[in-house]
Amino acid sequence: DPKLHEMLGYDPKYRSIGILSSRTGAGPHILAVDEAVKATNTEVISIELARDTKGGAGHGSLIILGAEEVSDARRGIEVALKDLQRTFGDVYANDAGHIELQYTARASYACNKAFGAPIGRAFGLCVGAPAGIGVEMVDAAVKSADVDLLGISSPAKGTSFSNEVIGFFSGDAGAVRQAVVTAREIGVKLLGTLGSEPKTDGTPYI
Amino acid sequence: DPKLHEMLGYDPKYRSIGILSSRTGAGPHILAVDEAVKATNTEVISIELARDTKGGAGHGSLIILGAEEVSDARRGIEVALKDLQRTFGDVYANDAGHIELQYTARASYACNKAFGAPIGRAFGLCVGAPAGIGVEMVDAAVKSADVDLLGISSPAKGTSFSNEVIGFFSGDAGAVRQAVVTAREIGVKLLGTLGSEPKTDGTPYI
Amino acid sequence: DPKLHEMLGYDPKYRSIGILSSRTGAGPHILAVDEAVKATNTEVISIELARDTKGGAGHGSLIILGAEEVSDARRGIEVALKDLQRTFGDVYANDAGHIELQYTARASYACNKAFGAPIGRAFGLCVGAPAGIGVEMVDAAVKSADVDLLGISSPAKGTSFSNEVIGFFSGDAGAVRQAVVTAREIGVKLLGTLGSEPKTDGTPYI
Repeated sequence: DPKLHEMLGYDPKYRSIGILSSRTGAGPHILAVDEAVKATNTEVISIELARDTKGGAGHGSLIILGAEEVSDARRGIEVALKDLQRTFGDVYANDAGHIELQYTARASYACNKAFGAPIGRAFGLCVGAPAGIGVEMVDAAVKSADVDLLGISSPAKGTSFSNEVIGFFSGDAGAVRQAVVTAREIGVKLLGTLGSEPKTDGTPYI
Repeated sequence: DPKLHEMLGYDPKYRSIGILSSRTGAGPHILAVDEAVKATNTEVISIELARDTKGGAGHGSLIILGAEEVSDARRGIEVALKDLQRTFGDVYANDAGHIELQYTARASYACNKAFGAPIGRAFGLCVGAPAGIGVEMVDAAVKSADVDLLGISSPAKGTSFSNEVIGFFSGDAGAVRQAVVTAREIGVKLLGTLGSEPKTDGTPYI
Repeated sequence: DPKLHEMLGYDPKYRSIGILSSRTGAGPHILAVDEAVKATNTEVISIELARDTKGGAGHGSLIILGAEEVSDARRGIEVALKDLQRTFGDVYANDAGHIELQYTARASYACNKAFGAPIGRAFGLCVGAPAGIGVEMVDAAVKSADVDLLGISSPAKGTSFSNEVIGFFSGDAGAVRQAVVTAREIGVKLLGTLGSEPKTDGTPYI
C-alpha cells in the first residue's frame, strides 16, 4: 500500500516488496540476501535485527527487498530462502551459547547495508556468544591474517543488546577466509569448554 | 517516597501511584489502563516496554498511574486488572509467534501517551510476530479501510527490539474496526502457515 | 591485538586484557569485579549489559579488565570468579521473576563505572523483576534509611530493556545496608505472592 510504503520511507519506485523474517538468525539471512540481490533484479530496502528469544543469545531479523515487479521480489526471496541452508552451515551451538561464521568472496549490497562491507571485495564475519568468546575470536582472527577490521559489535554497541561480540573483516579473499577459519577454530574450542561439543545443523561452507 | 518521585520525574501532586507490571504483554495492559483512566480519577505517568523473555517475541510492560488519593490509585489499578481479561481476548499465539489486535471506539490518555492516538477518536492497533507477519497485517489493514496510519513500529524503531511489526490506526469507528478485523484475518492465516492453528486464551472482543 | 584494542578504544597501555562474560547476571559480576580491582593491579575498561534470554527478565554481562601484565589480568579475573559465589548470594528467584541485592562498604572503580557510585563510600543496589516489584523495593528502601538515591533504572532507561527496576544507594554504611535489607524483605515478600517462595542458590551475604 502506498500509505504504508511512505510511512516506512520506501522509495515509491518499489511497487513490490519481498519480506524475509526470522525468529532465529540474522547473519545467515543477510548473507543469503546478499546472494539474492546479486542474482535477481531486487534491492535491499532495510535490514533490522530483533532481540528475539528463540535464538538464545542472538538476533532474529527482518529484511525488506524492493523490486519494480512482483515477480522480481518473489524471485529475490526464493533465492535467499534457498541459500539459507548454505549460510546456516557455519553456525555452531550448544547449551552454553553459539558461534557463527560467514564469508563471501565478493560482498554485495546486503553486506554493505548491514555491516559496511566494501562492495565487490571479500568479506567475512565471526560471532561469539556469550560475548567473551567473540572477543577471543576477533582477536585470534586479526592476528592470523592481514585483514581490515571494519568494526566490532558488542552487547551495548551495534547489536540489539544481544550477548554477542561480532567482528567484521574485509580484504583479500585468502586473508579474509583465513581470519574466519581461525575464528571458527578458537570459537568451537572455547564454546566446547563451556558445554557439549558445538554442532552445526548444516554443512560448513567456509 | 518524595525522593523516589523526584528521581523518577513524577509531578509532586501525585501523592499516590498505582503500578501495573507484566512479564508478558504490553498492548493489553495499555488498552486496559486506557479504560481505567476514563473510569477513575487517575492519570498515566509513564508507560515503559521491556524486552522480556516470557512473551516470546514480544514485550512486557511497566505502567505507572498517578493519583492524589490512595483510593483513586487503587481503583485505577483494579479497573485495569479487571479489563485485562477483555484486552487479552484478541491475542493469538502458536509456537511460531503471535498476533495481537486492539480496538477502542474512543481513545484516552494511555493510548495517546503510548501510541500518539488522538484522544476521543477511534483507535486500533495490530501486532504481528515474527515481524514479517506484521508487515503483511498492516498492509492488508490500510488497504481494507480508509484509516489514518498513525505509525509503524518494527524491531529497530519504536519497539524495545522485539521481533514485531505493529501498526497504529485512527479514524472513524467503522473504518478502524474494519482495518483491525482485516489485520486479524490475515495474521491468523499467516501465523497458522508457520505452525499449529493460532489460539487465543480468552474471548475475542473486536 | 593492537588493531582490536584500537577499534575497541582501549588505552594502548593495557597490554593484556581480562574478560568476564556471562549469560546470566550483571550485578553479581560487577560487584565481584569491584573486589578484583581493589585486590589486583587491574583497571576496568568496559562494562556492557546484554539483554540475554537465559536470565529470564534480567541481564547478561561482558566486562573487560585492563592490565599491563598478563599475570595481573589473569589474577583480576581469578579474584572476580572466586567472589561470584558470594555476590550471587542475595539473588532470589522463582518462576515469576527475581530480585537481587548487592552491598559493599567501600565502592571501587567497577561500581563507579557501572552505577556512578562514589568511590570509597558504602554502596548498595536492589533489583526487582518484574519491574513493578523493583518500584516497591526502591520506595521501601529510601523510606527505611537516610541514603542518597543515586539513580533508578527501568525497562526504558538505564537497562538494556530488561524487565527490571533497579535502585542505587550511597551513604553511610549502616544506612545503605539498612536500605538494602529493607528492599530484600519487601522484594522476597512481593515476589512470593506471584509464585513459589523465592530461593537463593547461594548464601546471603548482606
